[in-house]
Amino acid sequence: MEKKFAELRRRFEEVAALGSAGGLLGWDQRTYMPPKGAEARGKALAALEEVLHAKFTAPETGRLIAEIYDWAQAKGHDSFEASYLRALKRDYDKEVKLPAEFVAEFSLACTAAYEAWHKARAASDFSAFAPHLEKMVRLNLRKAQYLAPALQPYDALLDLYEPGMTRAKLDALFPELLAGLKPVIRGIAANKDKVSDAPFRGDFDEAAQLRLADELVKALGFDFERGRQDKSAHPFTGGSSRNDVRITTRTLKDWLPSCVYASLHECGHALYELGSPEEFEFTPVAGGAGLGLHESQSRFWENVIGRSRPFARWALPLYRKHFPGKFDGVSEEDLYRAANHSESSLIRVEADEVTYNLHIALRYELETLLLDGKLKVKDAPELWNAKMKEYLGVTPANDAEGVLQDVHWSQGMIGYFPTYTLGNLVSAQLYGAMKADLGDTDALVAKGEFAPILGWLGKKIHVHGRKYLPEELLQKAIGEKIQVRPFVEYIGAKYSELYGFRL
Amino acid sequence: MEKKFAELRRRFEEVAALGSAGGLLGWDQRTYMPPKGAEARGKALAALEEVLHAKFTAPETGRLIAEIYDWAQAKGHDSFEASYLRALKRDYDKEVKLPAEFVAEFSLACTAAYEAWHKARAASDFSAFAPHLEKMVRLNLRKAQYLAPALQPYDALLDLYEPGMTRAKLDALFPELLAGLKPVIRGIAANKDKVSDAPFRGDFDEAAQLRLADELVKALGFDFERGRQDKSAHPFTGGSSRNDVRITTRTLKDWLPSCVYASLHECGHALYELGSPEEFEFTPVAGGAGLGLHESQSRFWENVIGRSRPFARWALPLYRKHFPGKFDGVSEEDLYRAANHSESSLIRVEADEVTYNLHIALRYELETLLLDGKLKVKDAPELWNAKMKEYLGVTPANDAEGVLQDVHWSQGMIGYFPTYTLGNLVSAQLYGAMKADLGDTDALVAKGEFAPILGWLGKKIHVHGRKYLPEELLQKAIGEKIQVRPFVEYIGAKYSELYGFRL
Repeated sequence: MEKKFAELRRRFEEVAALGSAGGLLGWDQRTYMPPKGAEARGKALAALEEVLHAKFTAPETGRLIAEIYDWAQAKGHDSFEASYLRALKRDYDKEVKLPAEFVAEFSLACTAAYEAWHKARAASDFSAFAPHLEKMVRLNLRKAQYLAPALQPYDALLDLYEPGMTRAKLDALFPELLAGLKPVIRGIAANKDKVSDAPFRGDFDEAAQLRLADELVKALGFDFERGRQDKSAHPFTGGSSRNDVRITTRTLKDWLPSCVYASLHECGHALYELGSPEEFEFTPVAGGAGLGLHESQSRFWENVIGRSRPFARWALPLYRKHFPGKFDGVSEEDLYRAANHSESSLIRVEADEVTYNLHIALRYELETLLLDGKLKVKDAPELWNAKMKEYLGVTPANDAEGVLQDVHWSQGMIGYFPTYTLGNLVSAQLYGAMKADLGDTDALVAKGEFAPILGWLGKKIHVHGRKYLPEELLQKAIGEKIQVRPFVEYIGAKYSELYGFRL
Repeated sequence: MEKKFAELRRRFEEVAALGSAGGLLGWDQRTYMPPKGAEARGKALAALEEVLHAKFTAPETGRLIAEIYDWAQAKGHDSFEASYLRALKRDYDKEVKLPAEFVAEFSLACTAAYEAWHKARAASDFSAFAPHLEKMVRLNLRKAQYLAPALQPYDALLDLYEPGMTRAKLDALFPELLAGLKPVIRGIAANKDKVSDAPFRGDFDEAAQLRLADELVKALGFDFERGRQDKSAHPFTGGSSRNDVRITTRTLKDWLPSCVYASLHECGHALYELGSPEEFEFTPVAGGAGLGLHESQSRFWENVIGRSRPFARWALPLYRKHFPGKFDGVSEEDLYRAANHSESSLIRVEADEVTYNLHIALRYELETLLLDGKLKVKDAPELWNAKMKEYLGVTPANDAEGVLQDVHWSQGMIGYFPTYTLGNLVSAQLYGAMKADLGDTDALVAKGEFAPILGWLGKKIHVHGRKYLPEELLQKAIGEKIQVRPFVEYIGAKYSELYGFRL
């Protein structure tokens, strides 16, 4: 059995090593690749993907999994062997259930849909994207059927991004969340002039923004010996191993938070990957447990820490250092308030932490209705706009700033959006549990002492890699299921104080 | 047959696409990879190499080659099909002749030898490297035996780097070259104070050096839509496709030519790759025909063009623009002379165009003697030093600046060095033929009009990719075999005028 496990590990390590190559190619595609290199890069990635799929789904892998699964589980649920086999079997089952022809058809359809979406958004013409969205819905229903015919289609898809999550759980979470946020949004709207973001508006040298971003993530614990930070149009976290984790940020000359908070957000993702144990490298338990938990880390550092009062106190001297003169008349409190200006707006990626989840709720409703056949694709823009009005009181002037704004559906991803909200909820739960363990973290943050905070996250979350399903891991870490209340309380307390209203 | 050719192409395209991925991984390893990412990168490259080798040497590929080779040749020697099959068969035969166990043994020995060399050089302790060099000699003899048992071992190895080249040809070239250069080196030594490199010494902002390097290569024809220039410790040309060619340069704060001429050199390599026809992409005829021809391109732009009088005239305003004030008192003639300061020295990579080939002649002699068993490894340092004294009149103070200076032998490369000299010789031949076709190229260079020059190289050399063996291509391009005379005449005329002596 030991020998079979060793053989399985050898096989998977090869797959993971090829995946690591793919990781680098993807990073480069979005950072340094010269424009005309795109076509060849597409071919290289496709060839790599094909080899990877063939190696991963080799019948011998399936045989080995079947032969040693029980032996591994007998070592105890928490053992490396048991966790390794659980994670591998989950991935393997998903990968072999999709017929190669279907994968190819899906991939081609995504390429076409992405191009159509790109043009449709530029022209703000939903009708040009509609047939592709219809196809995406049909293909996702087929995908769900392949993956888990016994499940509701949406649950089968959700499981790709957040293993173990179900529509039943989300159907309970979202209404509670909306109900909790509604009075906060109302309070902010009634007091909108009380918080100013003026300190962040001006003319900020872009090289200085990047130097500030490097200094911030380094202070948080990002290890430049094991990673890099670069620029890209859309910030992301990528890389090719736990010792090569790469984040990107962007710069807007006249709006400093774009760089700073993209950087803190991606750093949160990176710290999770950097915290994955050395001995998990190139195994199925390397990395993070689900997109929701990953997002909890990015949101934790971006919002819970990065938009806190003590963070503003610590960071103000850094702002002054990198932008001489620009922050002379700005107090710690001014900086704190500027980082927490909230306003209902049209675009998800620009939304603040109060309104963000309403953008997600809307997408969740639309994509479940589409899958159920209860919403026709052609009626999606109208429902989108109506929901925007209902939830946020704003109405898109056109489909480009409405139903066409996000890339996800055009890339075949239905069931992905809720993980953003799960991340937000979990970030607040972790914050509560952390304070119970560490006491007053504000004092640490104000001094820029982030190591105990990162250490706590490492011990509770990062060290487990992908050993457990997300909810199982959360239970293990802090003894809770995913809950709405801590997030709503965090938002309510913070913004009622900031904007001066009672809840 | 058409169908079989299509199948062969499909198979090779996959191999080439995976090779393209490897190209990017290698580039990143030497430019942007964080230090601790090295181990995982090694695994990714090894996994990729294994897949690539397995795919390339699949028996089906061999069968298809055998089945359609004659059909392809019947299309005519110059046809795409015939050239494709010739190039592919050459590569395939080499790849299948080496047993997998031998490849693995060789690769492990190289890793060990490289590490030993690195430490031995740092400690200037040849004895620590000697056993590895012995092993490299033995393994290269075995390699030669696998590849071409009917050939002299050195010829079999040479063929890896410069297909068609033989020791017999080199044994004729080198003495003529040495004889031709000897009086030039003597003349320079007797007049060494007549040419000053002072304009290039000083304090040069490194970012400005890189901006100048970008502007220079852009003017030569390097297309930043299809490539990049970055910094690395050792300049190189890499990339992942004809539309993604990446060069690097280096900067020394107090010695400007290090950046400028590394950049021009690598740009020469890059222009060759960029000139490989679009329809050759991901086929065996993509790229350049042998290392010697490749080096002829880099040397042509670096030396023949880049160290010419009209180039100095054109470039002086650029030097003044990027280093305000620093070149005010420098004339075009001063700049030209500074770029051609020549002096016998110990280190190959720092040698000028006059003395460079003597460094190669020495290495050629040593490595052939080692293969023949006529020189014992332990006696190599002594012979090295004696030859340095004989050829260049200088003596290394220790082995680090003597026999241990180059990486090649530690990476298992015996038979590689002569390609540097072949490149130098060919660059002068091409220059002669170009002037016969284009007339006075000096006037073009002085105006920075490099397009007709690049166009000529493209039409004569680049457009043929790897369709022909190097000497066949040279014959086709300019109707000549490789010759010593044009290079010796070029060097003699240039340096006797510069240093003011008669030949």
